[in-house]
Amino acid sequence: MTELATTGTDLSRLRELNSLSIVRALRQHPPSTVTELSQRTGLSRPAVDVIAQGLVTDGWASVLEPGASSAVGRPARRYQFRADAGHVLGVDVGAHKILALLADLDGDIVHTVRHSVSPDAGPEERLAELDSVIDACVSEAGKSFGDIWAVTVAVTGAVDAAGQTSFFTPLPGWQQVNLASHLGARFTCPILVENDCKLAALAERWKGAARDADDIVYLLGGMRNGAGLIIDGVLRRGFGGAAGEIGALKQVRWLDAPAHLQNCAGVPSTVSPDDAAAWVFNAARDGNRAARAAVNRYVKDLAVGAAALVLTLDPQVVVFGGGFSRSADLVLDPLRKELERLCIRMPEVRASTLGADSVALGALKLSLNEVDDRLFSAGLSAPVAPRRQ
Amino acid sequence: MTELATTGTDLSRLRELNSLSIVRALRQHPPSTVTELSQRTGLSRPAVDVIAQGLVTDGWASVLEPGASSAVGRPARRYQFRADAGHVLGVDVGAHKILALLADLDGDIVHTVRHSVSPDAGPEERLAELDSVIDACVSEAGKSFGDIWAVTVAVTGAVDAAGQTSFFTPLPGWQQVNLASHLGARFTCPILVENDCKLAALAERWKGAARDADDIVYLLGGMRNGAGLIIDGVLRRGFGGAAGEIGALKQVRWLDAPAHLQNCAGVPSTVSPDDAAAWVFNAARDGNRAARAAVNRYVKDLAVGAAALVLTLDPQVVVFGGGFSRSADLVLDPLRKELERLCIRMPEVRASTLGADSVALGALKLSLNEVDDRLFSAGLSAPVAPRRQ
Repeated sequence: MTELATTGTDLSRLRELNSLSIVRALRQHPPSTVTELSQRTGLSRPAVDVIAQGLVTDGWASVLEPGASSAVGRPARRYQFRADAGHVLGVDVGAHKILALLADLDGDIVHTVRHSVSPDAGPEERLAELDSVIDACVSEAGKSFGDIWAVTVAVTGAVDAAGQTSFFTPLPGWQQVNLASHLGARFTCPILVENDCKLAALAERWKGAARDADDIVYLLGGMRNGAGLIIDGVLRRGFGGAAGEIGALKQVRWLDAPAHLQNCAGVPSTVSPDDAAAWVFNAARDGNRAARAAVNRYVKDLAVGAAALVLTLDPQVVVFGGGFSRSADLVLDPLRKELERLCIRMPEVRASTLGADSVALGALKLSLNEVDDRLFSAGLSAPVAPRRQ
Repeated sequence: MTELATTGTDLSRLRELNSLSIVRALRQHPPSTVTELSQRTGLSRPAVDVIAQGLVTDGWASVLEPGASSAVGRPARRYQFRADAGHVLGVDVGAHKILALLADLDGDIVHTVRHSVSPDAGPEERLAELDSVIDACVSEAGKSFGDIWAVTVAVTGAVDAAGQTSFFTPLPGWQQVNLASHLGARFTCPILVENDCKLAALAERWKGAARDADDIVYLLGGMRNGAGLIIDGVLRRGFGGAAGEIGALKQVRWLDAPAHLQNCAGVPSTVSPDDAAAWVFNAARDGNRAARAAVNRYVKDLAVGAAALVLTLDPQVVVFGGGFSRSADLVLDPLRKELERLCIRMPEVRASTLGADSVALGALKLSLNEVDDRLFSAGLSAPVAPRRQ
């Protein structure tokens, strides 16, 4: 069986795989000694020692020398993943606001910039505002564009294979906007564009209400309803990027649902249409009968579309997010009752814990996933922002 | 870097992985020479030679010696995967029939047995018929129960984690039936139970209308409608086994759809309710106006539930199968028109190419998948029927 001996190429690949497993073992843990890394990876202590020193040289890891004061016996040096070796951006381009989050490779947010924008703003105005938010976020954090390893932009509307909202978007004039090419003029790193509901779903699984679940239906409840789907732990886009668009089917009543709140009797004329729903939820909480009836009608319609998703996918968890999730206390119980009535297996129904920032957080997470995919598939060189192919 | 040298355990594992890659390289191809296997796997010719001889000894492969007549120069011996090293069963327990298929490890069917059963048959009668179909299928093929490596039984209704149709099934008294325990008294190999629509979807991707697709919505069209979902190439069961049950939502009208055919004016009183739909499809094909209108109403209702699935999942392909797919010539075009109207991205719509046998074929495929999962995860020993854990 001598013919099974590994070749030189095999050994070089083995060395790279071992480096990757040390990076992984560092990344998910607090600073670690060579002994700890050896236990975690199954590699010998001397091998870990050599590899870890190489990772420090390359810039993937830093060394924590044992402090003299903490010395008991002979304390070992510890290695730490350098989360600041690179940074990623997550940006939410909404109807009313643009929000950018800058994070290190651990996903810890180091800077946030939020600008208001008019829902009527045309594409040039919204793109200019996007540029200004990104400029502010990167420069105020003391970074340059070359320090950014991935950018994900969240938009409203299904995102097609070209990264455009060619099917439909409520943002005026936005269907023709090519964000990847617009931002590509400034960034050399990969630029992703994704639907807001899908990214909110990703965020709720990452840091929100569904961290323990692999099968998740995320409902975005607001003046527009939307959905994001995670199946077997993976965000699903569909074949053409249009998964989760059940709201377009009038029979499932999502188009009617918010109108019950906007058209509720008793909303003062001084309350703007945008604020009417909030007024109704508050009035319902105070016992106003018309408002309670409006909320019930809203939930009944919301539940039909939700039931279509639940019956199709049979998820473990339904997360109720979006603007209306601030009133989850009024929505969750009647929503559960309706789903019990309509579905054959009842999922858990939970409120979003991330609120309005979930979309930008999900964008950040998609950027981190992109970095990981490259990091752990393409092999390991010194840390540097990846270039688009 | 000497510390990176592989240990004895590593080498033994490497040898096993190399054996597995040779088995895989044999399994998906016609009889192959050592040179071909070497090219296919990247292993050296002498290594392949040693491993292939071991696989012959173990019973995984057979040798084809070059025939003297075909000798040009010095022809090489070829190795062949022994597809008859084991067999699997796929069984469809339907309302009207029980169908069993026996296949070798290549999925080639070696025997088929089909018995009629009354839709009113109680669980004891149906189980007795199932036993008799399985007995006949195994013994007529000259096999014994110990030769069977996996059994999958298809049933109507969502299958829960325990392998039972506890949510709902139209088979009388069947909700309490525990097929795994019933068949477990006779077989020692793994026994799987799965929903008929899900298995039909699997079959259409394996050998039917959607061999080229990874994102598939399978519609079972008949006196009951159902759906099976394949997403990113994997059959999806949902968290509790109840994925695809959109038909339970009355707003998407699948409960109403078949009634348009059954209640069509002009169906002769001599035609039984079970045969009414076939009569209507035939009459529509002959130009009967009432029948054409009934088919149109059927398709309009079918399309609402289909649109709910398409809008939720955004599949590449919708396959129309089930009993009514014999009349796909009347259904597909109007179904496409309705979906164009209701959906935001249009999938391809195709007719099933497997017809009524798709469910049993899908059961066979699930049995083969089960064998593969064990074969290629647990490591390779001599071929023997696996035992349930």
